[in-house]
Amino acid sequence: MAGAPPTPLPPGSVIGILGGGQLGRMLAIAAARLGLHAHVFDPSPGGPASEVAREATAAAYDDTAALEAFARAVDVATFEFENVPASVAETLARHTVVRPNARAFAVAQDRTEEKRFLEGIGLTCAPWAPIDSADDIAAALERTGAPAILKTRLMGYDGKGQVGVAAPDEAEAAWATIGAQPAVLEGRVAFTAELSVIVARGADGVTVAYDPGRNTHEDGILHRTVVPAGLPAAVLQDAVLAAGRIASALDYVGVLGVELFLAPGGKLLVNEIAPRVHNTGHWTIEATAVDQFEQHMRAVAGWPLGDGARHANAEMTNLIGEEAHRWAAIASEPGAALHLYGKAEARAGRKMGHVTRVSPLGP
Amino acid sequence: MAGAPPTPLPPGSVIGILGGGQLGRMLAIAAARLGLHAHVFDPSPGGPASEVAREATAAAYDDTAALEAFARAVDVATFEFENVPASVAETLARHTVVRPNARAFAVAQDRTEEKRFLEGIGLTCAPWAPIDSADDIAAALERTGAPAILKTRLMGYDGKGQVGVAAPDEAEAAWATIGAQPAVLEGRVAFTAELSVIVARGADGVTVAYDPGRNTHEDGILHRTVVPAGLPAAVLQDAVLAAGRIASALDYVGVLGVELFLAPGGKLLVNEIAPRVHNTGHWTIEATAVDQFEQHMRAVAGWPLGDGARHANAEMTNLIGEEAHRWAAIASEPGAALHLYGKAEARAGRKMGHVTRVSPLGP
Repeated sequence: MAGAPPTPLPPGSVIGILGGGQLGRMLAIAAARLGLHAHVFDPSPGGPASEVAREATAAAYDDTAALEAFARAVDVATFEFENVPASVAETLARHTVVRPNARAFAVAQDRTEEKRFLEGIGLTCAPWAPIDSADDIAAALERTGAPAILKTRLMGYDGKGQVGVAAPDEAEAAWATIGAQPAVLEGRVAFTAELSVIVARGADGVTVAYDPGRNTHEDGILHRTVVPAGLPAAVLQDAVLAAGRIASALDYVGVLGVELFLAPGGKLLVNEIAPRVHNTGHWTIEATAVDQFEQHMRAVAGWPLGDGARHANAEMTNLIGEEAHRWAAIASEPGAALHLYGKAEARAGRKMGHVTRVSPLGP
Repeated sequence: MAGAPPTPLPPGSVIGILGGGQLGRMLAIAAARLGLHAHVFDPSPGGPASEVAREATAAAYDDTAALEAFARAVDVATFEFENVPASVAETLARHTVVRPNARAFAVAQDRTEEKRFLEGIGLTCAPWAPIDSADDIAAALERTGAPAILKTRLMGYDGKGQVGVAAPDEAEAAWATIGAQPAVLEGRVAFTAELSVIVARGADGVTVAYDPGRNTHEDGILHRTVVPAGLPAAVLQDAVLAAGRIASALDYVGVLGVELFLAPGGKLLVNEIAPRVHNTGHWTIEATAVDQFEQHMRAVAGWPLGDGARHANAEMTNLIGEEAHRWAAIASEPGAALHLYGKAEARAGRKMGHVTRVSPLGP
């Protein structure tokens, strides 16, 4: 069967989605729009995704019997998040097709693996060094320059599991702060812009990217993504090509988010990759015919991908914690598309929703 | 409280939707996007809407106990269809807010009432006459011209319950064909275009319309809607004003579809009104920030309405019966947004899905 195009799962097929948060919610809605049925698996019942899914299983990720029953009930399984224990993917893979593959998760979960993979395919990361003990830090600082950031090898969300290191004499304290576990030391990059590319790769190997967005963060959490990014065309093209190379090298099937820094002089550094739909791609809901959520569903179902063309300009802003209390004012704003995730409690730092402000296509 | 703005239902409120077909489905998705919870009531379990709703009640429309329990479980009740028995709306209204109001249904369900209402607010219909027996038809033909169409007063869907009448000697047969029930005789209009306006009126009385679409039908079923309509600006403005006048005169809350004919010379005739989201408004999903489904949810929840501005051109084509079998080819088309309603069986004449082809904003 080598070279044969994949047989797409027909409408009426069941897509299993591990994870029941807002990404799973928007994936489930996209599945429904295509006549596919979503089955969400999440430890908590009644979350944002299960509300819009045909089926929901509420069970722990280490509940093997529940995972097996779920896997047998779906035609393909996918994920809203990247911190999938390898055992979960293995259990699922014994009973159903799993997309994306285990390699993508292995790379994305481990900063050392990730940087080695990226550099191995000819891409550039910020200067870095692996750290296995406090004693490694002084030598590593010479390579990265100071100040640098010490980050655990295994990923934490939103700035957790990391600490700044300004000089060798801070090594012991920094090592203790991150829990004395395998880590990397990363040099701080003086970047002029942060951008991200949402790329999709189909089961047939076809790769499609959306226009890169330009991101700003506040308190370590994504605040805003703007398209067009207002950067030179050559930079955007380099970013898209880098993302495509990553997807192909991983033999990836699905949507993948790639965050990059633009360094002075025009050089692009890859910051990190997320093997899933991505917060910086939410603008595609309003500004493309086939958004990132549908694109991911198409990829995992073996469908042809949408072309990614953008028919409007867009600016996506996250609503974090109590910012979502402004819903009525945002709903009054012309051209503003409001999304609330149905979470009951607006805790600080929690992503409660987002708003995409759309305007006609322009430069 | 007269003149006070309505208090919007906050996110987390429950919107009851009577009817579980594709319109209910797209309404439920819009509710979820705003952080509102959908509760669908439909006689059939597992239909297109219940799949994406947090709650679903499967019970007959004459099951008063089920209707009452549903009404008590929701914060406001609305409908995906206009043929609501008056008893249903009355039962609901004893326990919850019902939007739109009973007057809108009374007008839309009865062609005589509808035409009298429209002419009463200064709009024009095709020449018509009420028919209460076969004997009325000969005189009515003089008023409408021949050939004409005999239609039952109470609405049928998609061309059912109507028959052509070319001459007085066909009166008895035509009257028998429609079941010898109260009817209207309508003159055939030589129109140059059929257009429709999707208008929304908020609980605060604010009225918002989308750009009128130009429609074509095949076999009595909507085939395609195109925006922009390619008609003179003055015609489009007249159409929008007519729709706004209808919504205001009915003290309407929600989205309303108005179908109009453009007669030679530029005169607009109102064909019919539908007190609900409308097939000719599906293009708004891709081409506006706040689509007709969200607009209806906003209206019934007492939220501010979206402004209706369009950020792209669009062409919506229905997928009827086996046309939906072309899903893979349509999914391969650049710029095509495919919607399948999750119906198991592609019966002839059944609306299985639609495709909206979007392109950047242009004249």
